[in-house]
Amino acid sequence: MTTAPIFIAGQWKQSASSPTFTAFNPTTGQTLPQTFPISAWSDIDATLTAAHNAFHALHALPRQQIANFLTDYADRLDAAKDAIAAIAHQETGLAVAPRLADSELPRTTNQLRQAAGAALDGSWALPTIDTKFNIRSCLAPIGPVFVMGPNNFPLAYNAISGGDFAAAIAVGNPVIAKAHPAHPATTQLLAQHAVAAAQAAQLPPGTIQLIYHMSNEDGLRLVADPRLGATGFTGSRRGGLALKAAADAAGKPIYLEMSSINPVILLPGALAERPDAIADEYTNSALGTAGQFCTKPGITILLAGPATESFISAVQQRFAARPLHPLLTQDVRRSLAAGIQTWQSAGAQLLIGGAPAAGPACCFANTLLRVSAERFLQNSRALQTEAFGNAALLIVADSPDQAAAVVETLEGNLTGSIYSAITGDDDPLYARLEPLLRHRVGRLLNDKMPTGVTVSPAMNHGGPYPATGHPHFTAVGVPAALRRFTQLQCFDHVRPHRLPPLLQDANPMNAWRFIDNRWTTEPLPHGDGHRPAAVSGGPR
Amino acid sequence: MTTAPIFIAGQWKQSASSPTFTAFNPTTGQTLPQTFPISAWSDIDATLTAAHNAFHALHALPRQQIANFLTDYADRLDAAKDAIAAIAHQETGLAVAPRLADSELPRTTNQLRQAAGAALDGSWALPTIDTKFNIRSCLAPIGPVFVMGPNNFPLAYNAISGGDFAAAIAVGNPVIAKAHPAHPATTQLLAQHAVAAAQAAQLPPGTIQLIYHMSNEDGLRLVADPRLGATGFTGSRRGGLALKAAADAAGKPIYLEMSSINPVILLPGALAERPDAIADEYTNSALGTAGQFCTKPGITILLAGPATESFISAVQQRFAARPLHPLLTQDVRRSLAAGIQTWQSAGAQLLIGGAPAAGPACCFANTLLRVSAERFLQNSRALQTEAFGNAALLIVADSPDQAAAVVETLEGNLTGSIYSAITGDDDPLYARLEPLLRHRVGRLLNDKMPTGVTVSPAMNHGGPYPATGHPHFTAVGVPAALRRFTQLQCFDHVRPHRLPPLLQDANPMNAWRFIDNRWTTEPLPHGDGHRPAAVSGGPR
Repeated sequence: MTTAPIFIAGQWKQSASSPTFTAFNPTTGQTLPQTFPISAWSDIDATLTAAHNAFHALHALPRQQIANFLTDYADRLDAAKDAIAAIAHQETGLAVAPRLADSELPRTTNQLRQAAGAALDGSWALPTIDTKFNIRSCLAPIGPVFVMGPNNFPLAYNAISGGDFAAAIAVGNPVIAKAHPAHPATTQLLAQHAVAAAQAAQLPPGTIQLIYHMSNEDGLRLVADPRLGATGFTGSRRGGLALKAAADAAGKPIYLEMSSINPVILLPGALAERPDAIADEYTNSALGTAGQFCTKPGITILLAGPATESFISAVQQRFAARPLHPLLTQDVRRSLAAGIQTWQSAGAQLLIGGAPAAGPACCFANTLLRVSAERFLQNSRALQTEAFGNAALLIVADSPDQAAAVVETLEGNLTGSIYSAITGDDDPLYARLEPLLRHRVGRLLNDKMPTGVTVSPAMNHGGPYPATGHPHFTAVGVPAALRRFTQLQCFDHVRPHRLPPLLQDANPMNAWRFIDNRWTTEPLPHGDGHRPAAVSGGPR
Repeated sequence: MTTAPIFIAGQWKQSASSPTFTAFNPTTGQTLPQTFPISAWSDIDATLTAAHNAFHALHALPRQQIANFLTDYADRLDAAKDAIAAIAHQETGLAVAPRLADSELPRTTNQLRQAAGAALDGSWALPTIDTKFNIRSCLAPIGPVFVMGPNNFPLAYNAISGGDFAAAIAVGNPVIAKAHPAHPATTQLLAQHAVAAAQAAQLPPGTIQLIYHMSNEDGLRLVADPRLGATGFTGSRRGGLALKAAADAAGKPIYLEMSSINPVILLPGALAERPDAIADEYTNSALGTAGQFCTKPGITILLAGPATESFISAVQQRFAARPLHPLLTQDVRRSLAAGIQTWQSAGAQLLIGGAPAAGPACCFANTLLRVSAERFLQNSRALQTEAFGNAALLIVADSPDQAAAVVETLEGNLTGSIYSAITGDDDPLYARLEPLLRHRVGRLLNDKMPTGVTVSPAMNHGGPYPATGHPHFTAVGVPAALRRFTQLQCFDHVRPHRLPPLLQDANPMNAWRFIDNRWTTEPLPHGDGHRPAAVSGGPR
């Protein structure tokens, strides 16, 4: 079997380098036969040049062509659902149904279609017009975007089909996609559909490109390359921080979603009111797909008392009864064991689980630990280690003061949840803890577990460092997620026929625009752009 | 005379450290008598704690109190115009009128009042509501903001009264202001009015604080401190990049406006059509206030020919005839001389000027250089050195290809201007050069010099690195400039009475909100927030 080709500058071709890698079937524990190339710098250099060349050509295209590409690509993926789910299952162990075929693939195509809508309506660009001074601005494409997807979403976050891909392309940026090495064949199949759709839409060669793997050094070089506009990365904190340092030093924007332990606070009134329902919700959220979610509730804060002890027992029983689900890779399993070990060394007590499961599948026992808030506060850094997989930590505080102190030690997270009594009994405690929590998380939930990231314009899949690299941006949600891959451009006294469509008087895209401090889809009366600009304010 | 007090945690008090500095009168060349403290870490540590404590208190205040503060502060500054302009003139050499009293101070108070409006209308927050899933998000204050202003705008960019200050406070963040050491007495006077207004508005102590100076090491430590939310910096590239590295490593957002040479392209048809007008505009823009503007046209690209030679002669005559204006400090004069020397060493030819002027005032001869595009391309890095002050470089290209090559070597800049013939004769050349230029600048101008930054919602005073640290953000313009000092916060299934006002069904702030993909100021029908959230999409 030959090594899989990469896709560069509009062509499938063999990588210029000879090292290869293979993927792994976590259900059987077997290595998969197909080999994929580990690209050397010469491959990457070629993608950068092709993407750079594609950028200006893409800029000149009507937005309809980009929207057509995204929609057609979504249609092709829907039509190929069974084949995609089958191969993704083989490489990830995720269930064909409902997970891959009925949930993740529809989410993926929904994202592509929403991005197509945004490409057409310009809602991401925040077009702004000051008619008095004839100054106009909007967000505009930033340049070629390098996308690295994570191991845990082979479709919806795949570098060639996921949210970052859709966002970067919809804005008008070429994408250099790097497959996650845990699911290269899935990525190859997705890319074949992407290529067919890009050719049908006559996008410039170099608009989409695919490589499978590269050395860490080449990754650091790539994110800092002058030809690149920005990078989107979803993955480990260690990898993300190394890339961030390289990109930051070169002044290149990089958007990272790195790690999160997603604190859940279960207030006493809620636990007294509906213990079984919360134990069910918690177990489902912590153990679904073996807990391999960025928004898994990694730590939970409870107040000491009989209701908390009953809850812990109930959860422990549920963890014991719950069938195991394979982890994505042996690395994930090793890393999960190491994380649990870190928690234990820092004083957490193992209640159940804690070891790999026997058998060919790459499983780990469902694992639950507890620690006192006092102990947590003494080792808060170690006890905030993300243990990616089916393990969770319960923190029991003796008092509201202690619970508040725990929240105040938390690093930035994607989410934070608070369950409180319907009766209002917990409201004083909620009012005390919520302001401390809210500032530390990107998304605050009430009475709801954090897993389940709706693709909504109002979603924030982001948060303060080190959950991400910058708390202003979200990785999920149209149009907001698209704004990551933009630069602000202002047109000062630019002649009317030279303005981009979003800023023309006639508003040919029928976009929402912020004109003289109000939002409107109305065109401007013809001729406003022609009058001489007044100049106010001081120079600068 | 005692050393001036700093303002920490609601009180004027002596700095805990003993080193001091003095300012300089550039008009007389004399050192000014008042001494100001160089704070040690203990001062800074105290401001951080006070700002951290103020943050939550500020969050709980009605927005009206913040707006009242900003408006009252603006009124106080307007009333004290003469005293402020006099002291700022003494420390900067900038003219009392029209510059300080009639241009910069009104601009400053205009910014404060616009920020007050934004505090009330929430336009900066982009409130977004998805009624189907009951998910709501908006931008929210990021935490205490450290502001460092530049030497060249003692009022409109002052850390205690300028654009960054207004933006950070309007959003609801405490500000730690550091005076620029070139105008500490001006800053002290402004701060006295700020303090009076803050006390009148009953803002929490620690909302505004002032220190005058610190070591570079303490600056690096401050921008990375966990108690800080973000930093706003306007100043030199060297200082900015050092601060950026420290802030980036700690994951703290930092917004930098560092340096820019603001390329101007004068196309042949425009030069043939209106040579005198363009020579006048160019001279005014390059030499106004001794060229001490971030948007000074530092380099100008021309195409070789008789019209260009005439233009160069005309500009040379104007430079010779133009009276000198003092530079802000001896450092600025030394740095200007060094920049010109760098240009000359890289092959630029001195046409006029090039040396400090005799006499007590801190002046430098109006300086003009030229270089061929060929030479520029051989030394493009050195020839893109910013020479801050009254010096400018003309680049003469032999062909459109050469002009395009020059544009393609340019680093990121705040602005880029293109002058073209009214007749349309230059349009083919414009169409070739503009796409190359646009992507490299924050603001594109037609037939207009770049100095003159209108405080407009559509302004972009920003641009690609290294003009700034991130091309998505602007330092000027309300509401966009406020968004720098925010984090995105999402409320998922949060109970209605717990939502921030901007996201409540009733829309009590009458804000523009993006609801189900359209912008509106309408409230939501009461009760929409109560219905159970549906959950869609896959988990993540």
